[in-house]
This record gives sequence, structure tokens and C-alpha cells, in this order.
Amino acid sequence: MKGPLEGKLYHGAALYPELWDADVLAEDIALMKQAGINVVRMGEFIWSRLEPEENRIDVRFLADIIQTLHENGIDTIMCTPTATPPIWLSHGHPERLFVNEKGETLGHGSRQHACTNNAYFRGRSAIIIERLAQELGGLPGLIGWQLDNEFKAHVAECMCAACLQLWHSWLEQRYGTIEQLNEAWGTHIWSEYYNRFDQIPQPGATPFLHHASLQTMYRLFSMEKLAEFAEEQIAVIRRHSALPITHNNSIAFHVDIERLFRQLDFGAYDTYASSANWPAYLINCDLWRNVKRGKPFWVMETSASYSGSLESYATPHPAGYVRVEAVAAYALGAGGFCYWPWRQQRAGSEQPHGSVVSAWGKKTIGYANVVQVEQARRELEEILLATSPMQAQLAMTYSDRAKAYLRTEPLRKLNHRGLVTDFYARLVALGIHRDLITEGSELGGYKLLLTPFVPFLSPDYLDRAIAFVREGGIWIVGPLTGGRTEHHTWHTDAALGKLEKLAGVETTFVYPIDGTDAIGQAFGLHAPLGMWSSVFEPLGGNDIAGASASDSDHRATAIGCVHSGLTPGAAFITERRIGQGKLVMLGSMPQGDDGDTLLRRMLLHYADEAGVTLRFEATEGTIVAPRQGDGYVIWVIINMDGAGGHVTLPQEGIDALSGAAVPAGPLTVGRYEYRVVRF
Amino acid sequence: MKGPLEGKLYHGAALYPELWDADVLAEDIALMKQAGINVVRMGEFIWSRLEPEENRIDVRFLADIIQTLHENGIDTIMCTPTATPPIWLSHGHPERLFVNEKGETLGHGSRQHACTNNAYFRGRSAIIIERLAQELGGLPGLIGWQLDNEFKAHVAECMCAACLQLWHSWLEQRYGTIEQLNEAWGTHIWSEYYNRFDQIPQPGATPFLHHASLQTMYRLFSMEKLAEFAEEQIAVIRRHSALPITHNNSIAFHVDIERLFRQLDFGAYDTYASSANWPAYLINCDLWRNVKRGKPFWVMETSASYSGSLESYATPHPAGYVRVEAVAAYALGAGGFCYWPWRQQRAGSEQPHGSVVSAWGKKTIGYANVVQVEQARRELEEILLATSPMQAQLAMTYSDRAKAYLRTEPLRKLNHRGLVTDFYARLVALGIHRDLITEGSELGGYKLLLTPFVPFLSPDYLDRAIAFVREGGIWIVGPLTGGRTEHHTWHTDAALGKLEKLAGVETTFVYPIDGTDAIGQAFGLHAPLGMWSSVFEPLGGNDIAGASASDSDHRATAIGCVHSGLTPGAAFITERRIGQGKLVMLGSMPQGDDGDTLLRRMLLHYADEAGVTLRFEATEGTIVAPRQGDGYVIWVIINMDGAGGHVTLPQEGIDALSGAAVPAGPLTVGRYEYRVVRF
Amino acid sequence: MKGPLEGKLYHGAALYPELWDADVLAEDIALMKQAGINVVRMGEFIWSRLEPEENRIDVRFLADIIQTLHENGIDTIMCTPTATPPIWLSHGHPERLFVNEKGETLGHGSRQHACTNNAYFRGRSAIIIERLAQELGGLPGLIGWQLDNEFKAHVAECMCAACLQLWHSWLEQRYGTIEQLNEAWGTHIWSEYYNRFDQIPQPGATPFLHHASLQTMYRLFSMEKLAEFAEEQIAVIRRHSALPITHNNSIAFHVDIERLFRQLDFGAYDTYASSANWPAYLINCDLWRNVKRGKPFWVMETSASYSGSLESYATPHPAGYVRVEAVAAYALGAGGFCYWPWRQQRAGSEQPHGSVVSAWGKKTIGYANVVQVEQARRELEEILLATSPMQAQLAMTYSDRAKAYLRTEPLRKLNHRGLVTDFYARLVALGIHRDLITEGSELGGYKLLLTPFVPFLSPDYLDRAIAFVREGGIWIVGPLTGGRTEHHTWHTDAALGKLEKLAGVETTFVYPIDGTDAIGQAFGLHAPLGMWSSVFEPLGGNDIAGASASDSDHRATAIGCVHSGLTPGAAFITERRIGQGKLVMLGSMPQGDDGDTLLRRMLLHYADEAGVTLRFEATEGTIVAPRQGDGYVIWVIINMDGAGGHVTLPQEGIDALSGAAVPAGPLTVGRYEYRVVRF
Repeated sequence: MKGPLEGKLYHGAALYPELWDADVLAEDIALMKQAGINVVRMGEFIWSRLEPEENRIDVRFLADIIQTLHENGIDTIMCTPTATPPIWLSHGHPERLFVNEKGETLGHGSRQHACTNNAYFRGRSAIIIERLAQELGGLPGLIGWQLDNEFKAHVAECMCAACLQLWHSWLEQRYGTIEQLNEAWGTHIWSEYYNRFDQIPQPGATPFLHHASLQTMYRLFSMEKLAEFAEEQIAVIRRHSALPITHNNSIAFHVDIERLFRQLDFGAYDTYASSANWPAYLINCDLWRNVKRGKPFWVMETSASYSGSLESYATPHPAGYVRVEAVAAYALGAGGFCYWPWRQQRAGSEQPHGSVVSAWGKKTIGYANVVQVEQARRELEEILLATSPMQAQLAMTYSDRAKAYLRTEPLRKLNHRGLVTDFYARLVALGIHRDLITEGSELGGYKLLLTPFVPFLSPDYLDRAIAFVREGGIWIVGPLTGGRTEHHTWHTDAALGKLEKLAGVETTFVYPIDGTDAIGQAFGLHAPLGMWSSVFEPLGGNDIAGASASDSDHRATAIGCVHSGLTPGAAFITERRIGQGKLVMLGSMPQGDDGDTLLRRMLLHYADEAGVTLRFEATEGTIVAPRQGDGYVIWVIINMDGAGGHVTLPQEGIDALSGAAVPAGPLTVGRYEYRVVRF
Repeated sequence: MKGPLEGKLYHGAALYPELWDADVLAEDIALMKQAGINVVRMGEFIWSRLEPEENRIDVRFLADIIQTLHENGIDTIMCTPTATPPIWLSHGHPERLFVNEKGETLGHGSRQHACTNNAYFRGRSAIIIERLAQELGGLPGLIGWQLDNEFKAHVAECMCAACLQLWHSWLEQRYGTIEQLNEAWGTHIWSEYYNRFDQIPQPGATPFLHHASLQTMYRLFSMEKLAEFAEEQIAVIRRHSALPITHNNSIAFHVDIERLFRQLDFGAYDTYASSANWPAYLINCDLWRNVKRGKPFWVMETSASYSGSLESYATPHPAGYVRVEAVAAYALGAGGFCYWPWRQQRAGSEQPHGSVVSAWGKKTIGYANVVQVEQARRELEEILLATSPMQAQLAMTYSDRAKAYLRTEPLRKLNHRGLVTDFYARLVALGIHRDLITEGSELGGYKLLLTPFVPFLSPDYLDRAIAFVREGGIWIVGPLTGGRTEHHTWHTDAALGKLEKLAGVETTFVYPIDGTDAIGQAFGLHAPLGMWSSVFEPLGGNDIAGASASDSDHRATAIGCVHSGLTPGAAFITERRIGQGKLVMLGSMPQGDDGDTLLRRMLLHYADEAGVTLRFEATEGTIVAPRQGDGYVIWVIINMDGAGGHVTLPQEGIDALSGAAVPAGPLTVGRYEYRVVRF
Repeated sequence: MKGPLEGKLYHGAALYPELWDADVLAEDIALMKQAGINVVRMGEFIWSRLEPEENRIDVRFLADIIQTLHENGIDTIMCTPTATPPIWLSHGHPERLFVNEKGETLGHGSRQHACTNNAYFRGRSAIIIERLAQELGGLPGLIGWQLDNEFKAHVAECMCAACLQLWHSWLEQRYGTIEQLNEAWGTHIWSEYYNRFDQIPQPGATPFLHHASLQTMYRLFSMEKLAEFAEEQIAVIRRHSALPITHNNSIAFHVDIERLFRQLDFGAYDTYASSANWPAYLINCDLWRNVKRGKPFWVMETSASYSGSLESYATPHPAGYVRVEAVAAYALGAGGFCYWPWRQQRAGSEQPHGSVVSAWGKKTIGYANVVQVEQARRELEEILLATSPMQAQLAMTYSDRAKAYLRTEPLRKLNHRGLVTDFYARLVALGIHRDLITEGSELGGYKLLLTPFVPFLSPDYLDRAIAFVREGGIWIVGPLTGGRTEHHTWHTDAALGKLEKLAGVETTFVYPIDGTDAIGQAFGLHAPLGMWSSVFEPLGGNDIAGASASDSDHRATAIGCVHSGLTPGAAFITERRIGQGKLVMLGSMPQGDDGDTLLRRMLLHYADEAGVTLRFEATEGTIVAPRQGDGYVIWVIINMDGAGGHVTLPQEGIDALSGAAVPAGPLTVGRYEYRVVRF
């Protein structure tokens, strides 16, 4: 049986009834119907309209709008308006406001100015949310909820006095006694030893760098508190509404997606990536499909043509691109594809942002894109609803906790999002169907697991990954993975702690290999090595510590070795058979074009060895989204880069749109075209 | 009859008697006479010398100096010293100081540290100014006043508590009720709705951008308050002195020149543009001649060779360049040309700034330039006093209010000064004599009006521009003009509001055209298009709204169209005949060399059509300043770029300096040379 | 007789017993012995371990460690721990913390967060230091003290309230009366006149630049106060210990080295220069040998391979480089060569910093370098202890006061360290043995004195330099030297004050010569000129003011002249014979490769003329350190750049390591090799 949002493909837009009068709304509804919009999202900034003065609350006009929309065949997702509390909440109350890392209090006039940990703000949020849930929760046409808007898009960790107190409690809960914290953090370094939890500062301005443990823990604390705020909202809504709840998020923001979505019902994201950087769009589909697996995710916001604000604007998308964005999303598991905004903002900071309809009620440059999307949606809806995205055989771990560690320790300006997206783009280029999965995700069904850029591997993750290996999986670990403890310190037993023992190697040296003329050689290829690196010496059986010893475990082997440089002969790629599978260490990052070639070769090698068959021969820039039907498979083939391309079909199929036969062999797709082939 | 400053050409320098003893003053006077200096400006920073402790005021020594100067044939312009209040005003009184947009209070030790809206500062300013006016106002040799020094050169909008209160009053005065403000600003966006004026913040630190209306109104408020401060000073001076009053300003500062000079008597500016960027020097002449039309303007400060401070210095001007700066200024309407400073600063932050005489009393590297200027001044004085600058037939609107809108909405780092100067430089390169005029200026006498880069067109401006068109003028509007309302929001009737109706077009799309491969074609040329753009569809007669309908109005015509890109076939240049003239829309900005060529072709085309005859065939880098005598015309021909060049004379003339005949045809001018030809 | 640290060559590392338990310490001692470490430095951050709560002090465990080390043949240098006061000192006491130039209070969690002028901090520092001195001062194995750690590495001038009061007292002490300060600073500029000392601000945020005198005096004040803090520490230690005291410093920090080391016993520095920038390493040896002349200096910290922190890392040194760093240091006068740190930091901000042993107790990538150094140390120890570095014949003045003036007046981003290092690198490239000496150093024994980049020449310095000239020395002055008074103002008698008179020239123009097409011609070469410049006219005998007149003084002569540009014919190099020597003015900075050639030619010319014989014919990148034995000389020849090279021996010598004869003529040294030749 389908869930509440699963009966159709949604095509939507963000609506701001607080900004326009009834005539404009009527005009908008007529235009939306014409364009094929069947859902709107509203309310995320509406608080001042609902409660212009403290305790003077009236949300009834929203009920009328939801009903009118419903009568016109348009469903509604209702947001909690907590991203922008009204002036009465902040005026004269600087203590309720966000304080940044420089100690500056950020004021009213923009968004996210309230500290989400402020008790008064939390209380007022609960009151307004409860009213919305009570009065709107049961209305026909209302199909779901969204919390707030883009949590932590503009701000990261708050440094206000309320957060300071919560920080102390959180640390006490985590560490129990101050001595345990002192020991875990090694606080006698730089005389940072604490006598009491209430002495521990927030990571504000200092003459030089803050302690790594303090920084990382403050990030984790902040992400946890934000998730608690979300859960408070969920609990309030749940008292009055059983509809699914989501939040519009992004990997660019400062949240722990896995933790935040634990009690949410379906995934949703916002993206404004440029067409030239289409893998940065696509990565969301492969991630969010798995954040709440089995539930369609939503593209909750994207631009119909270009984004913009008073201080910047993007290049408009080329004709045809928005359509393939939508097709790719739907094919990879989206249940909804929504524009921001429907009508151009008349006032405020985002006046230059693209829209579907202009502030004066005319079709914008994006409108034609919307019409194209709607045509595709109608064409595909039946086909897609009868099938579902296939689980990939290759999984790559995505971790916002890893991102927190890297924000504390960026070394040479390492950027988590860029690192992850680049690595991901390689998988896409290789034509391998892939899942991005959060740290706690089940590993069943996968054959190849990648864990790059995760400084701290939790014991739980390590246990599950090794179990995955024992059962036949191949696990590629690194680069930059495993070198830090939970507390953001070095291991003291071995460079990579327990992982190193499991890998059957000794990490002989850990050092920044950039600029040392080190060349990596593996799989018959060679490339310069770079980035903070570990190099290894495979250990003989007797040297391998007890942790992983079992009859089916083997000695590790060097697969890739360093030539020249400071550690010639050391391995940078090793593998070790454990149970039915393999643990592969990737200790360094091959650089440049040669490095890219080497990494691709390595990935293909292990994909082959692991038996990864969900792989497509496609020219770069053209992707395949495989879906499972009842006794058949479909491939949605999409040209994403605007250059056209082709995909080699392994057997004859049927064009699911025309019903015509499609021969085996190369199938051409034109610029921003898509095809659906059924096998 | 000549006004008080119009009997001669002044050649001056800034003098700091507060910094040197009597012997040095005597030495300076002797040297000034030798160099031909006939006026000094003094006093703009002298407050602590006049009132070293609060209420201990003594200004008499200035009277002696003015008298001594007068006896030596040197006139004086006296400044009010309000740019630098003494330590007793600020010490222990942070509430009197300027607060920047980050909330930092800026302290004593530099300039402009007081908030010009602080009541105590205003009071003390009035007292010291009154004493100066009383005791010096009637002295022989005193010929005028200058207010303060470079208002808002170092600071923009103050965020202090006093300003906050004034801001609330100003808003209440402007909007009447809070509901009218809420409606005009659309404050329910991001829940920014206000219940009372006193809740409205200043545009300080926020997590993301402030509301456009709030930002722009705060800029207008600040500029208005500054003008009120100037008017307070004027009123005090006027109680004791009828001499003309000015202020040394620049288009680089944060003031509304038109508003600020409303009650001032003559225009004056400071400039330190490099010789390579000579159009940035010249633009001042064509602007300030028109700020107070009919009154000679003054170059109140420029360097005799190079500018500098502790943290930077400019390249010294090449030999000959300062002379042509002076000649260009005098020829284009200047009554005075003054150096800053006469004697090098011995101490403080501007020790590396070039001067005429060194701190040890010797001639500097700039001295020879001063001598050259004086030779030219003497050569030209009689000729120039017998003639006056001709009004141009082409006017380009200069608006500091437009600058305020663009500071709020810079999109891709748009810089008002750069945009305007580049556009202006094209007119110079085309040899068209031109006036830069402020928004409220009369349009009588012009044939071609250009209004680029003015986001908000006031109803008054629009009415006067259309009247100008009806009477036969051609008005070229854009790029970037007319798309915003008074409140810095979009129009909601049409992209460009009433302007669009008058232009007889529909603005089909408004979007950032950069990077979309759009090519503009017009006048047989084509060029890539860029910048935030409007594209048009000319409307048929019946479609044109009533606003402009009259018998003599015609349908609009597409003159330039977009090829390829996202809106092929749309017009980016249209024209419409209204009355006896034409309204020409320029919706986009042609880019690169081809774009420059196209824009020049367009400007020449309409200049021809409008009958602009004040145009000169000159090689680029050489300019002509036309002046009207009693029954004759003179051309002052000046090589500004140091490359030499020639001007084609349409008929035989007389060399006004030598009396020799000059044949029709090309007249050569050498590197940094000038010629004066009489017809 | 040898001093306390002079009996051997030390090879050491920084130890952090506060961070590891006894087992690790035992392991470390064993490894240190194996690697040849014979001294450790410890304690600079240990305060919280010694005094975890206020007044609960226990330093005894350090005595045990010192004893254990001693028993293992490892000496100890003990630090005062004042760089990082514990949390109890700062928690709840923002008034004790450092305030930066933006007015931000910098908090606990890093280093140098306390204001070193805070009285409470000073008091607590004295107490903890006294306990250390009392309890450890007499222990066998303790060989010396280090104060604090890298004073002013992360911070410059503090702007706290306590500093403000001290600033007023310091000014009063310096200037006597406020009128004398007003006069010296010329405070009526910009109305900065002060009625009382307590009105004078710190150089915090202002709308534009602060007054030069105020800025520079605040820097001098801060450096003086820091030195007083050091002297307070010294006095406390001296009550209980007669061991030598030092501080680990760097020319990158904000201290006056000459003043700071006045009461310290031997020089020591930290350096982490890259191998590519080896002259930036070497300059320290030639400077610190002379800071406390006759005492071996220490390289107190350098990396065994690479430095790093959470936010950056360096490229590991190439194999062989660390060895030649050590050899160069020892040969040029070092008594100790120490790594930072011995064991990798497990926690905190410097986890990525290279070390000798890893956090898990293994040899790091730097370990092999340490072994190489130890081999060299043993090979050289006897030879070096029997000889001592020869004083150079060429001295170049190094002045942190000059650095303070240039920080106030950087003009076009002039960087003192870069200017000085580049100038120094030329001397190295020319093979001239050189001393860098502070302003107050004796000039006896030198033949050629260079004084570039010293804006203010003190009367004392000038007197001593002229005496040096009279006795036969050649003194090259400039560029950028002598143009400012003590108070950071211009001279008013002549551009360069008394210096100009002594030079027998008139400085005809002072101006920024960059971009003016000026070409300097001298010594048969020509090159473009740049930088803030002075150009001269040599004066005839009668024109030379009395200051320098004596029978043996001559007229100045132009040696280098300016061609083209704004001052053709002016001299930029002049010389004047005074007594037995010469004063040479260098008014401008030749630019580019031609400029470099010209400067080298000039330096060689005057080195020859002065009779500088301590000069070596070596390929660039290979250096010679000459040392004097009892009746013989040795040359330590070192290839620093990794390219190998050769040195031409003037006569046959003996290889001091092998005893073999070495013929006259070219002697080859390989990549990062060294040779020792005895003559």
C-alpha cells in the first residue's frame, strides 16, 4: 500500500499568501493549474502574519487558502514558521538572538536571527506550531508538514549565554566527570585543564586555534540541540496531525542530517547548483533516497531558472536542463519536485531571485521550463509509480559528523562538501549505480562500501563494516579515514587504532605527502600522491593483533606502493581478505589526471571483484537510473550535461514511452533528452 | 555682473597655520607669491587650535593671518572645522561617536569620528562656527567659506543610538503610519512586520541580507540628515557673512550631492585620480559645472604630483599632466584650481602625501607642475573670463540616490562610480560635449538625455523627461534603469512600471542575461549582452496604456534584438516616437569590444538624430571644451592622455594665444599640450 | 673558561611530561638516548599541571623527571609556564585578557590570552616561577631556563584598560609634559591636541588612519612593557638560580629583540622556514650569534620534518636538509639544536605537527633526520668546540624598532621581515661572511656597515656610525633609512636631518619613484628604480653644514644617477669621504633582475674598497662558515639548497674529518653535504 505522499508525482512551488492579496492568489491558482502545479508549500516565514503581536494569533485565513487550493486540485505542505520570529520576540531582547563566533549578536531583519536554543523562543515556537497543527491539521488538501526553513543555512554554532549553559550540561552528560573530559581531551596541553564543567568556554575568539576536541564537540553539541528543537516541533504537530513531516535541508548546511531526520518522515532538500556542476545536483538524489529509505524524497526547492539575491545572481539554466533535473529526481526516487518561489518576491532581499511568475503576474523566463517538467512528469508518472528505484550495490558513506571533524581540522582548506562531491562524481562518471548512505545505515544488499573522508570511525560503524566484509563485501577505507578518536585526538595504540589491526597492516608513517615527489603505483598505473596520508606495511599473520583473527582471515597484501619521495616502497593501497570479503585501505589521494585515472581503475577493479553489476556503459554526462517493476526493469536514461551521448543497451528493450522496440547496442540521447527503456 | 568669486581665475592651495609657526608662514607666503598662488583654503581641521579646551575659544590669530595673506595678494577661503572635533568632545563620551555597520564605535585619532547627528556635537559645531563667522566674516581677503571637509569620505551610515531615534522619526515622517510602511516595504516577508516605528532596526549585522527597503531608506535618511547638518552650518554663517559657501565633495563619498548643495552657493570637489584614469578626473568638471549651474565650480583639492598616506601612495603625475588638469578644469567652468596641501604634513597620517613645498621648506617634485599651471592660468585668464562654457546638447543624469539603490543591490558587485565613469568616458571618446546633471536639473536646452543606472525613476523625473521628449528630445533609458519603486521593491503593474507604458513596450522578461549566450544585434552590429537585463516586445497602439496616449504618439519599434540565448527575437533596444521626440529603451548592456562599438554606434546614431552638433572630431585622449564669447566661440583643445593627437577644425579660426590664423582641417596638439582657437 | 652551556654541542627536543604517563616517559627516554638527544626543554605550557587550582601548587614531579633524565645523560632546560595561564586565572575575569586592535577580548582555549601587563597575571606568574626556581633551581641536570614561549607570536599590542593606564604613564615618563608631546607629535593636525595624558587613546578602530606618532609610540611602549615582564621573571629566577636564562624568539614576532635580551644570558630562536626558503633559516644564525655575542645561541625549536596545525601544514623537509640546518647552525655559532616536539601531540590544535616520535610511540618520518643530525653532531663536536665563529667584516643592522616604524608606515605593503631577508640573502649569495647586529651593537672590527630600512636613525647610532667611518669604515645608508624623527615625523631642517648634512648632499626630492620610468645608472650598470626614494645633489664644501666639517672631510660625489623619469640627473647613490672612511647614501631601490645585479655590484665594490676579505667563492646555495682555532682557521662548507655546488679553496687545506689533504681550487660538495677544511 502506498504511503500518504506516494500516490502521484508531485510538482510544486512555494507560495507566499502572506505577501499578496486575494486577487493575486486567485490569479496564481489559475496560472498554477495551467502550468501543472499540484502542490504548494507555504508558511515557513509567515509568523508575523499569524501573530503580529505577541499572543494575538489568527491562523484561520490559511484554512481558507488550503481549502481553495484543494478545490483547485492543489495540495498543500504547511511549514512551521520558526525560521523568522516576529519583531516582538527580538525587539529589546538581545539575549534571544544568535551570537556568532566573533561574539557579534545578529539582529532582526533577515532570517535565523533567533538562537534556536533560547527557551523563550522555543516556547513561543511551540505555541504557534500547536495552533497551526490544531486548526489546519485535519484539512482536506493538507498532505504534510515541513519544519522551519533550511535550518542552519546562514549560521553555524551559536555562542550565546544560553548555549553556554546547555553546552556545560551536554558535556557533563557526555563525559560524566570533569576528570574524564580532561583525560579524553588531554587538557593539560596549553594549560587548558578544567576544574568544573562551567569553566569550559565556547570556541570564540582566541589568539590562536582552539583545542580540537572542544571545537568538534561544540559542533556535535550544536547539531544535537538543533535536532532536539526539531523533535520538539514534531511532538507538537503529532498531537494534532498524523501527516508526514519533513524539513528542507542541504549538505551545505550545518546540521547532522542523519540525526535530524531520525524522527522525520521523509527526506527533502533544496538545491541551487549550476547546470555546469550537475553532479552537485545529482548527489542529493542518491543521498536523500537513502536518508529515509523506501520513502520518496522531495526536491523541496530549486530554481525554475536562476537564483539570486541583492548581492548576487546565478546564470539562468540552459533550456532543457530543468526538465532533466526533474526527470533525474523522479527516476532516482523523488516524489516531489518544487520551485522556489512561485511568484517573484516583490520586496525584501531576494527580489532578483528567479521564479515561475513575475511580481507583476507574467510568465518568467523559467516558466517554459516548468511546462517542460510538467510534460515529462505526466509522461513518466504511470511508469515511475509502477516501479521503484533499485538499491545500489555500491554504497558510499556520507557523514555530517565527519564534516564536523573536517571543519575543525581543514588542514589545507579541505572542504567536506567538495571532497565528497568530487569522489561521488567519479562514481557517476563510471556509470556505477550508487547509494550515499549515512553512517548508521544498514549495509545489507551492498557489495562494495566506500568510506572516504571520515576521520572518526565509530566502533559501531567499524563492527558493521567488518561484518559486511565477513559476509563477502569489499570495503574501501580512506583517504583521510579513521585517524581520529571520538574526541578528536590521535589514537595512541596505532595511527588508525583498531582499524589498522583489522586491516592487517602497520601504518608506518602518517604525514602530508604533498610536495614530497611521492608517486603512487597500482593497477599498472602511476600518479602523484597528495593530501594528508598514511602509508602501510602489510603485517605477517603473527603480527596481526587478536581483534580480527579468525581462520578465514589472511595476511594483508600491498596493492599500491609509493615510489620515490620520502617513503619509497611503502604501500598506500593494501587489501586483506577477511571472511568472505576484503578490507582495502586507501591511504593517500592520487592527484591530477593520472590520479583520477588510477582511482577510477581502482574503483572498477573492486566493483568487478565485488560483483557490482548495476553498472552502465554510458558516455560521461549521461546517466542511467535503474528501477524495478513487477517482473521487469526499466532504465531511465538522461543526458545531464547538455552534450548528448549514448548508452549501450545489453539486450533489446522496449521504449516505455512509445512502445517501440529498442535494439541492443548504443542508444543515443540528445542534449538534455531522456529515454525510458524497459527490459 | 560677476559674482564674488568670478573676477579672476583662482590658483590656490590648502594652508595649515595651526601646524607651523610664524616664520614658516612668512616663508610660505613668499613662496606662494613666487609660484602664483592667489588663494588659500584653511581651517577645516583647526578646531583644537581654536578651542583647545571646551569653551576656551580664540579665533583671532586667524584674522591676522587672513590680513597678512590679503596684504600679499592672497585671498582666503575659510572652513568650518567640524570634520575633527577636539579630544574634549569625544573623551569619555562614546555616545557622541560614529558607529559602523558592524556595531564598532570608532574613536578619536583620525577624522569624522563624531556622529554628525549627535545633538551635543551639533551644538558645539554651531558655537565654533558662529565665532568664526562673527570674527572673520567681514575681513578683507576673505572670499568664501567651505563647510567641514569631505563629508562622509571615510564613513557611510552611522548606527549609533541617536541615529536610531532619528531614523524612527524620519520614517514616521515619511510613511505617516506604520501600516503604510509595512505595506510599502512588504514587511510580512521573513516576518519583518513592525508594530511601531520604534521597533525598526538599523541595518546592522544579521545572519543574511537585510531587507532592501530598509537598507535603501537608511541610506537616504543618512544623506538627508547630513544635508541638514550642512544647512545648520550655513544658517549660522549666514547670520554674519554673505560670502559664498561651498563644500569639497566627491562622487566617491556617501552623500546626495544634489540635496547637499541645494543651499550651497557654488560647487567644489576633491580629486586624486591617476593620470591613466583621466576620464575619472574629467567627469567632475562636467558634473560640478552643473551642480550649481552658472557659477564657476572649484577644484578644491588635487595633488601637485601624487597622493599618499602611511599605507599607500600614488604614482606621481607625469610632467605636463597637472597643467592640463588645470586647463581642462578652467576651460570647462572652474573658477579655482587648488592643491592639497601647500606644505607637506610634518606629522600624522599623511606624511607621504605629495605637496608643493616640503616639510623642510624646499620645492617638491610637484613644484614645477604648479609653475606650469600658473603660466597657463595667466595665459588663459583673460580669454576665459571673457567667455563662458557652452551648455551641452547631451545630458546624462547623475544620481546619488541611484547610487544608494545600487549599494543596496549590487548584484554582481556593481559599482556605481565605475559604471557611470565608464559610460561617461564613452561620450568623451566620441567627442560629444556633455553635461552631467543631477536628477532634479532642468532639461531645457538639451537634445539628448541619457539615464543609465538609475533603478528608481521618480514621478517628477519621469514627467519632466517625457515633457522633454514631447518637445523634441531623445531620451535613452537604461541599462538598469526604472526597475524599482521608490521603496526599493519591484513594480507590480509591469516590470518597469509607468516607464514601460510610456515606452510602448511590454517587458517580456527581466533576467540576468550574463552567460546565456545572448547576442544583441542593432545598427548593423552585434555583441554579447550582459548584466541584469530587460527584454521587450513593442506593443501595438491598442495595447499601449492610457498614460501616454496622444495623437502624436506612435507604436514602439524594435531597434536591437536578441539572437540566440534564452529569449531570441526579443528586443533589447526599442524606440517610440512621443510628441516631437523619442523614448529609447536600452534594456541590456553590450559587452566587450564589440559591445563598446555597438554602444558608441547607438549613441552617435541618436546624437545625430537629435541634432547634437556640439561634437568634435578629435583623436581619443584629446578633448575640446567649447566656450561662448560675445559673438564668437572658442575651443580649448587639450591633450589629456599624454599621447598627443589632433582635432579637425571645421573652418579657419584664430589662435587665441598667438593671434595667428589657424586653417581648417586637422590641428595637432602635442603631449599634454593645449590650444585655444577662436571662431 | 667555558660558560655553563659551552662544554658540548646540545641536541635536544621539547618534552611534555604533563601530557603523558610515566610509562610513556620511560619509553621516550629510551628512544631519546637511541637518537642521541642530550637535552630536553619542558614546562612552557605546564602551569595547569603545576597549579590546577589557584594556590594549589605542586612542582615536585618535575624534580623527579629532571633527575631521571639526568641519570640517563639528558640535561634539562626548564621554562616558565606563563604563555598559558590556567582557566582559574581567566574564567570570569575578562579584564585580565588580551584585547586586540578591534577591541575584541580574546579568551581562554589557546595561548597568550592573558594581557602580560595585567597586574594580577604578573603576580601569579611571579609566584609560580618562584616555586619552580626554588624547587628545581639547584637540581643536577638542570642547565638553564627559558622564559615563557614565543612572546608575542600570536598577538601584537594589547588594547585593554590596564594597558591604557600604563600607556599614559609611559607617555608622561617619555615626554614629561603634555605640551612636549603635543609639539613632538604635531597634534594640532586633525585636531588631535591633548590637554592631559589621560586623554590619549590607544590605536584602536577609527574611520581612517591613526596618527603615525601615536601608532609607533604604542608599539614601542608595548615592546618595552614586554621586556619589563621578562625582567620581572628573570629577577624571580635569579633569587634562586644562577643558571643561564633565555627565551625562544623569532624575528616574526612583535618584540624588540635587542631590548628583550638585554638581561637574558644567551640567544635562542624558533624557526620553521621551508627548505626552499633556506636563507630565512640562515638569517637567524647570523643574527642570534650577535644578539648575545660570544655566547653560543640555540635553535630552540625547529621541525624534524614539517610543521602543522589543524588549519595548515608545511611540506616535509627533503632528506638531508635537516642535517645541514643543524650543521649550519652549529658552524655559525649554535650551542644547541632542538626539535619541537619530541612526541607528537595527541590532542589539541597541533596534532598535525611533525615530531620525532608519533603519538603511538613509533619513529616518524622525521626520525631519520634526527639520526643524521646526531651523526653530524658527533662528527663535528670536537672540531667546533676547539674553534669559534669568526666575526664578520661586514655588519648589517637589524632593528625591531625600525620594524615598528614600518608597521606604522608600510606604504605599499612593505614587510620588514621580507625586506631584510631579501637584502640579507644577497650577502649570502655573494659569499660574504656577515653579521646581523642590533642597533646598539658595537661596531669595532667591522669594515663595512649596511643600514637599510631603518626610518629613524638615533643620534647615538649616528654618532657611532660616523665614528666608525672616521676610523676607516664604509657605511652604506638606505634605502628607506633616516627619513623619520624619533617621533615618527618628518625632519624639518632637511629631508634626512643630520644624516643629510653628514652625507654632504642635499636631498633634492623625496618621492615614490615607482612607475615614473626612472632608471638608475651606476657602476656601469642600469636598472629601474622603485620604492619610496630620496635623490640627492652633492654639495660643495662651503655648502656642507658644520656638523661634520673637519680637515679630512671631502665633498660628496654622485656615484649613481637617475636617467629619464621626473628627476633626471639627480643622484641616487652618493659617497663622501669622512675621516678615513666613507659614507655612502643609497636613496632608491633598484628593481628586478637588473636591480639585483646593480645592488650586488655595489655591495662587492664597497666590500672590496673596505677590504672585506672574509668572502668565499662559492656557487649560490653553498655557504662557508669560517671559524677561528688556535693558530688555524676552519671552513665549514655546506650545501644548503640541495643542488650541490663547489667552493674555491685559496690554498691547500686539510679535510678536518678525514685528515686528508684538500688541494687548492674548486672543492665539490654534493646535495645537502658538508665538508670541513682546515687551513
